[in-house]
Amino acid sequence: MRKIIALLALVSATSLARADEGMWTYNGFPRALLEKTHGVKVDDAWLERVRLSSVRLAQGCSASFISPTGLVLTNHHCVETCLQDLSSAKKDYLADGFLARAPADEVKCPVLEANQLVAISDVTARVKKATAGLQGKPFQDAQNAEIGRIESECQTSPSLRCNVVTLYRGGRFDLYRYKRYQDVRMVFAPEFAIAFFGGDPDNFMFPRFDLDMSIVRVYEDGKPLQTANWLAWDAAGPKDGDVVFVSGHPGGTDRQLTMAELEYQRDVSLPNTMATLSELRGALTEFQNRGAEQKRVSSGMLFGVENSLKVFKGERSALVDRTFWAQKMAAEAAFRKALAADAKRGKEALKAYGAIQQAVDLQRNVRPELSYVMGTSGFMSDTFRFARTLVRGADERTKGAAERFPEFQEAKLPAVTQSLFSSAPIDDDFEIFKLTWSLTKLRENLGADHPFTRKVLGQESPAEMASRLVKGTKLKEVSVRKQLWEGGKAAVDASSDPMIQLARLVDPDARSVRKMYEDEIESVTKRSGETIAQARFALEGTSSYPDATFTLRLSFGKVQGWVEGKKAIPAFTTLGGAFDRATGRDPFRLPQSWIDAKPRLDLATPFNFSSTTDIIGGNSGSPVVNKDGRLVGLVFDGNIWSLGGNYGFDEKLNRTVAVDTAAMTEALRKIYGAKELLGEIVR
Amino acid sequence: MRKIIALLALVSATSLARADEGMWTYNGFPRALLEKTHGVKVDDAWLERVRLSSVRLAQGCSASFISPTGLVLTNHHCVETCLQDLSSAKKDYLADGFLARAPADEVKCPVLEANQLVAISDVTARVKKATAGLQGKPFQDAQNAEIGRIESECQTSPSLRCNVVTLYRGGRFDLYRYKRYQDVRMVFAPEFAIAFFGGDPDNFMFPRFDLDMSIVRVYEDGKPLQTANWLAWDAAGPKDGDVVFVSGHPGGTDRQLTMAELEYQRDVSLPNTMATLSELRGALTEFQNRGAEQKRVSSGMLFGVENSLKVFKGERSALVDRTFWAQKMAAEAAFRKALAADAKRGKEALKAYGAIQQAVDLQRNVRPELSYVMGTSGFMSDTFRFARTLVRGADERTKGAAERFPEFQEAKLPAVTQSLFSSAPIDDDFEIFKLTWSLTKLRENLGADHPFTRKVLGQESPAEMASRLVKGTKLKEVSVRKQLWEGGKAAVDASSDPMIQLARLVDPDARSVRKMYEDEIESVTKRSGETIAQARFALEGTSSYPDATFTLRLSFGKVQGWVEGKKAIPAFTTLGGAFDRATGRDPFRLPQSWIDAKPRLDLATPFNFSSTTDIIGGNSGSPVVNKDGRLVGLVFDGNIWSLGGNYGFDEKLNRTVAVDTAAMTEALRKIYGAKELLGEIVR
Repeated sequence: MRKIIALLALVSATSLARADEGMWTYNGFPRALLEKTHGVKVDDAWLERVRLSSVRLAQGCSASFISPTGLVLTNHHCVETCLQDLSSAKKDYLADGFLARAPADEVKCPVLEANQLVAISDVTARVKKATAGLQGKPFQDAQNAEIGRIESECQTSPSLRCNVVTLYRGGRFDLYRYKRYQDVRMVFAPEFAIAFFGGDPDNFMFPRFDLDMSIVRVYEDGKPLQTANWLAWDAAGPKDGDVVFVSGHPGGTDRQLTMAELEYQRDVSLPNTMATLSELRGALTEFQNRGAEQKRVSSGMLFGVENSLKVFKGERSALVDRTFWAQKMAAEAAFRKALAADAKRGKEALKAYGAIQQAVDLQRNVRPELSYVMGTSGFMSDTFRFARTLVRGADERTKGAAERFPEFQEAKLPAVTQSLFSSAPIDDDFEIFKLTWSLTKLRENLGADHPFTRKVLGQESPAEMASRLVKGTKLKEVSVRKQLWEGGKAAVDASSDPMIQLARLVDPDARSVRKMYEDEIESVTKRSGETIAQARFALEGTSSYPDATFTLRLSFGKVQGWVEGKKAIPAFTTLGGAFDRATGRDPFRLPQSWIDAKPRLDLATPFNFSSTTDIIGGNSGSPVVNKDGRLVGLVFDGNIWSLGGNYGFDEKLNRTVAVDTAAMTEALRKIYGAKELLGEIVR
Repeated sequence: MRKIIALLALVSATSLARADEGMWTYNGFPRALLEKTHGVKVDDAWLERVRLSSVRLAQGCSASFISPTGLVLTNHHCVETCLQDLSSAKKDYLADGFLARAPADEVKCPVLEANQLVAISDVTARVKKATAGLQGKPFQDAQNAEIGRIESECQTSPSLRCNVVTLYRGGRFDLYRYKRYQDVRMVFAPEFAIAFFGGDPDNFMFPRFDLDMSIVRVYEDGKPLQTANWLAWDAAGPKDGDVVFVSGHPGGTDRQLTMAELEYQRDVSLPNTMATLSELRGALTEFQNRGAEQKRVSSGMLFGVENSLKVFKGERSALVDRTFWAQKMAAEAAFRKALAADAKRGKEALKAYGAIQQAVDLQRNVRPELSYVMGTSGFMSDTFRFARTLVRGADERTKGAAERFPEFQEAKLPAVTQSLFSSAPIDDDFEIFKLTWSLTKLRENLGADHPFTRKVLGQESPAEMASRLVKGTKLKEVSVRKQLWEGGKAAVDASSDPMIQLARLVDPDARSVRKMYEDEIESVTKRSGETIAQARFALEGTSSYPDATFTLRLSFGKVQGWVEGKKAIPAFTTLGGAFDRATGRDPFRLPQSWIDAKPRLDLATPFNFSSTTDIIGGNSGSPVVNKDGRLVGLVFDGNIWSLGGNYGFDEKLNRTVAVDTAAMTEALRKIYGAKELLGEIVR
């Protein structure tokens, strides 16, 4: 045992861990560590209030209640889809901003769902019992089935969302029960030009000058929600060195991956995905030159693509950093040595490393099939997405919970139909553009002679096929989608809609590749990862936090700048800095409202700030709260070093980037004249 | 010594070398090895005739004389620029093909230069003497100066081209003397649709069905060149298993790179370059949708980008192949062991590995500056290229040979002016498109706050700046460029042309980064590479071939298919196969001439074939000759496995892909009715 401890000390010495590392679960929050490192205490009431004030946007962001009247604060980029959906060729809310001066002016977002985490319970024993002694496919099936049962039992009303969350790579399972709010209305959004000032060039950069905020309101039964838990607004913002917390939903991290999996990411998935997204970026940028309307309908997608590219670039930078890689290698080697010395669990865990390597090698070989036969990378289009949901849904809904795909379990159906019945408009040109491009990629990646390519394209060119399908499909109408969903298998089988026909044609192939993937890759890495994770618990105890899973976490740290090479980067920027940086040209163009308001503004007002809190994508929109639980900032980004945080946290460099409440207050008051809104939140 | 030999045996065991590996110099051709492995002898006369029949196209391709009347055979894709230059909105020779029935119809290509290698002499001793005892910058300067002197002394007439070729990474220097032919005229090209049938999807794939050929004629003093050396045309083509030779100009290989350099390629340069090119590809593809004329002017560039992407993809595949990487690691480790045991040279060579690692680490950090400040990646435009040549040329031509940049040495000036005074038309739209895109990349890669970005862009957006420069510059006129070149420094300094102004503005920064690069990176890796290469010679003798350098090489092998997984790929395809594969849609659309001629064709005629000869990019257009020195094929591609050939040759998989002379004969006769041309070449 002494030997194991010595080896683990070595692991720590070579790892990147620091005091502020950790995206902690609310039921595993390390109060003692916080007190030890920062001298700050939080109690149960503090934790419960902040948790219940936290909001998850089901589409992939974080947010928080900021008034007892259902107002929710999040990022502008988290409601960009809504702004686009509400816009038309006549009125562009994305470009011009939005402000409802009275509740009657608040407009419902077609696809925006807010979730509030009301309860967490440990269901590990139940899941483990159901999978005891199983391997491979039976293991996966049993686990899916048990998780489906637990979720269904919990799901007593459509206004609940129940998810079993897999933590520690399957080492622990917690049931998260959320209150769902599907009536979410737009209240305030600034102009895109200031929400994303600096555009892609400044994304993940700091110093930064962005008002990346928006305010929506949650409605219940047609009325603004009355809520007991919300964060009090601190209009002064934080000070340099203040201890702060971030409560939000980090989407995913890969800090416990084996070297085999990291190598796959470094050598295969990241560079290939980046090449594909780069090409799409180039095509989209040029598509935007076709005209103003094309620009409008494609801006959201372009933002998403550029954002992903920056993220992957940051992640890849960490993996190709020779020092970082060597540290990861040393840490794994040390841990494997510790395992070799552990008679009880070591052997099985070491075998798991081999199994993962084998699964990863297989994944390398079948990667094009996973993306283009199993996945929908070749059919990039809203109407194909609807068609697949309708075709799959018709089949899956005839099955029992044990046989059904996880995404069609009863508990998931409300979310499925919310997306399927979205009233967001669909642009034919853009659909054809996306489908043409992605069919071309399908042919390129599988090869022109692949049976699936031949089956899909026949004698048509990608452009011809895309045009025929998009012009011919009726799935652009919500009513047609409703009819097919409600008509079930009979209606879908009888449909002669060309997009439905395509979805039907490719479904058997997609299912067959999915089966192979689940049986030979996913379940192997999952089960083996669990074995390793369990061995790690046995050795390290519960002192660590699980990899992020887009579930609520609490991070802590300090407001702090950093040192870049030899240059000190201060923690704060000011409103005045935005004016200094503006060139008058996109993406460094300030909106007219700002130029007009300049004389009235206090230019020394803190605008954006950086902190040592540990976050990752999905944390966008998270509240930054101080030790008193008051709102002082709004997370909207991390610096470029934060992206390597996917694999490890480096407290010297990794920074969260947030909008200061002081700047939001100044802007709402003096630029947007939103006095009714301020009256609700600043008390 | 026994120990060293044992270690070298280990190197061989773990390397990928096979019998047919090797791009041999004509003065180092391994006749004994050829006889041993294939039972075939070649004599001095054979070698001299094939060498003198071989042609280098200065723009980056290979070719061969195929008649005593100056006819030269190369690939269609090697003259694509010429076809584009000769075309206009009215007549598109790229799409429609070209056939001159009489010499009077042959049209001069604006920028096509043919070179014939007439002599090789060893100048190693002279270069080594000039650099003896030097390191770093002084070493580099002395070497450049001596090479400049040797070339200038040789360069007794503008119809000669003299190049000192660095072989074995500086282990040996040979002076190559070429006869230059600058009057090259278009004689025959088929339609793009059959030259590149299958397009990008089929590029580097096999089975293949491409008539990727063209025929040009070299003129001297306004008359067709009379030449004594040319390859006799074998209209029957080769048989499966025949021994064949490829005589051409492989552009470059990296088979002797250290692991530090390979790691840089795997992790940094390849993935980053691929992401950038992918984005450009997407933008170009969509630019083509603007209209037929935009499509025409951008097709050549799009082809180049897609071709490069495939090459890099193939290369990266080799480097991320876990087995391949492990073999390379083992080979370097074994060689380093051998060095450690070599008292005479070992220590210095081992130190050289460390120096290379350090230089590569520096290169990682300054990569954006190398591309965007030193290089022209941020100023992608023909007119900026002219401007840089004019501004640089004006300065450099005032200097002596020792201080001058290598590309402006007297011997190089004819090629510089040929390119500068090209009459190829310049399209404003396309110039603006390219410049906008590349300025955006400059800002992205250096960062918006980089002093160079600020200096270049000021307050302008990339689009505004590109439009102003392209619309304002007069460099589109050949006469203006001539005037500025001939006016020298005074004329260039006095010019108010906006593109010249930009080139002047950025030149000091570009020169300063170039100096750093040459002093701290290039000269270090060069010198260290030479140290290692010399140690390798000392240990391995002269039994190896040097990495490719876009100079004439001779490879040998057999006509042979290969086994892919469990599937045997036959060596030959047939004309009939093209008809089976056609869908009627680009890029699988056969030209009308083929459809019309189908009933007359012998569909069993061999079309394309694969062979085990060792080639790489630059070999495009190389003749394939049989043991009698007769022409049996025309290299136009390699299979996907040939791309990893950049780092090592795998005889099991690596294949050259060529057009069969039988197919060329059948097509010229029955599809194109080119009986005059056939009369000149088939005797």
